[in-house]
Amino acid sequence: MYGLGSMGSLVARMLDERGAHLVGAVVRSPDKIGRDIGDVAGLGKRIGVAVSDDIVSVLAAASPDLVVMTIASYMEDMFEPAMACLQAGSNVITLSEELMFSRRTSPTETELLDKAACEAGVTLTGTGHQDGYWVNLVSVLMGTAHRIDRVVGKASWNVDDFGAELARDQQVGASVAEFDDWLSSASRPPTFGRNALEQLAVVAGLNPTGSSTDTKPVIAEVDTECRALNTVVRRGSILGFTDVDSLTTQEGVLLTIEMSGMVYGPHDADYNDWTILGEPELNLRNQTVPTSWTTCATMVNRIPDVISAPPGYVTLESLPQLRYRHPHPSGR
Amino acid sequence: MYGLGSMGSLVARMLDERGAHLVGAVVRSPDKIGRDIGDVAGLGKRIGVAVSDDIVSVLAAASPDLVVMTIASYMEDMFEPAMACLQAGSNVITLSEELMFSRRTSPTETELLDKAACEAGVTLTGTGHQDGYWVNLVSVLMGTAHRIDRVVGKASWNVDDFGAELARDQQVGASVAEFDDWLSSASRPPTFGRNALEQLAVVAGLNPTGSSTDTKPVIAEVDTECRALNTVVRRGSILGFTDVDSLTTQEGVLLTIEMSGMVYGPHDADYNDWTILGEPELNLRNQTVPTSWTTCATMVNRIPDVISAPPGYVTLESLPQLRYRHPHPSGR
Repeated sequence: MYGLGSMGSLVARMLDERGAHLVGAVVRSPDKIGRDIGDVAGLGKRIGVAVSDDIVSVLAAASPDLVVMTIASYMEDMFEPAMACLQAGSNVITLSEELMFSRRTSPTETELLDKAACEAGVTLTGTGHQDGYWVNLVSVLMGTAHRIDRVVGKASWNVDDFGAELARDQQVGASVAEFDDWLSSASRPPTFGRNALEQLAVVAGLNPTGSSTDTKPVIAEVDTECRALNTVVRRGSILGFTDVDSLTTQEGVLLTIEMSGMVYGPHDADYNDWTILGEPELNLRNQTVPTSWTTCATMVNRIPDVISAPPGYVTLESLPQLRYRHPHPSGR
Repeated sequence: MYGLGSMGSLVARMLDERGAHLVGAVVRSPDKIGRDIGDVAGLGKRIGVAVSDDIVSVLAAASPDLVVMTIASYMEDMFEPAMACLQAGSNVITLSEELMFSRRTSPTETELLDKAACEAGVTLTGTGHQDGYWVNLVSVLMGTAHRIDRVVGKASWNVDDFGAELARDQQVGASVAEFDDWLSSASRPPTFGRNALEQLAVVAGLNPTGSSTDTKPVIAEVDTECRALNTVVRRGSILGFTDVDSLTTQEGVLLTIEMSGMVYGPHDADYNDWTILGEPELNLRNQTVPTSWTTCATMVNRIPDVISAPPGYVTLESLPQLRYRHPHPSGR
């Protein structure tokens, strides 16, 4: 376990319930170091392995079949840690959104990781919620269409579920003028939509050409309570914003995802909604989206695919169809 | 093209738009025999091949790479025609609902077809709407769950879309007593739910043990107009019925599909809805379900998979993930 935050701990619990052997864990927080993995991850039992802060010694001592990395979203923060695991001869599965398909956003680093994985005879794969909900469900749905012109995904998350820091990041409570100033000057990390759309295109047999991101404010139509900031967002002020990522393809099919992070009103809820425009028009909607659960469960269900995959950086178009892995009561 | 009814004609149009070469067609209706395939299928052009009633001579003359069979739902009606195509050395793709997964409902015939396909070095596969909406979308969704107890699918179709004969088959307008009499005495063909659930189980890595079908009347809560019968179904009478197919598995996961065929009220519409009960609870809903289009488009998108597949009777768990095949403007 490389990372034992909320995601890493949930994955650890799922793995333990399925009889996997947790042979080591690396974290950054000083208050977790030296404690038992079971305590840190909240497994309700000790498993006899202490959490460390030194990946090199853990890899050397434990020789894991696979490292679960839940430490970062972007290649910038993933490159060196992932390289260390691959060079030690471990398969790696990660929730890094960029690494789900980093061939176009970080081609040099991706190539180096691919080379290291091939040399060590192991596999590196990125997965998570988007594997199912933004890529493979959508590609299967596309497989029931005769002609596709556009694919439009819409998803949302509630700022109030993620605390004050993220609420301020989403510009909650700002005026429209303040939002426009921020948007024109902001240096934001890239959206995850681009990597997901590029992965979707490749899974669907399409060839990406160019991508763009547009950001639109979500403006309060009525006074709306924001629990994260313990305030009320007045009518006309900013509830959050929507990132609209678009990807063009050689085939002329346009892929778009609109991701809204905002303060919810009483009738809003998380959802995942995809429409396919063409012949015929199709749609798919997930009304219940327990994202942290689907993120971790998808990762756990993908582990046999990653261990069985050929060496290298392997993205989702090269893996078998995502499927459920019923736990064997007898363990691994 | 083995069959050029409404489904076969729509498939023919899709294939023609993608540059496939239609080299022969076999039908039963005397009024279609001898006419050009393009005329019979409504392609808006002639393609220079006449429709025949003799499969053996068409296979011998045309030596097709693949035969598209849209003639029947059940093995009983499919066995001999499919055998003729396989023995002539043609791959076969079919919309037969039973042949999507006939290993348990018709094991002897399935084995004979598998043997013939292997001997001829060709593939036989059943596909259609259920490939995407009842099997593969559901299995991918299941792949985002940690623990599954039950999977429940619900779908419906409007009796008024299919004419008077089917409305009478669905017991529209009968009293509850009449419905109960019919149900206890009726000799109905098996539901398609069973084959679909068995295929879903196998795609999802589960092992089917037993299946059952239960049939429940849908009773009018208000007077409801039935266009197909040009009548009004009175409150308390039968609007149609729901078949509930259930499949148990070795793993203890219960799979169910509830399929309702009934006269719609003003607020009813076709849908496809799946819920996964376990940890976490998940759902998926297709609100727009243009079934005849998705049936035919899925079949056309599956053709490259079937041609590439190893010889034999090949079911969906052995094919690559269903995906869109963007047409090449230059043809095949």
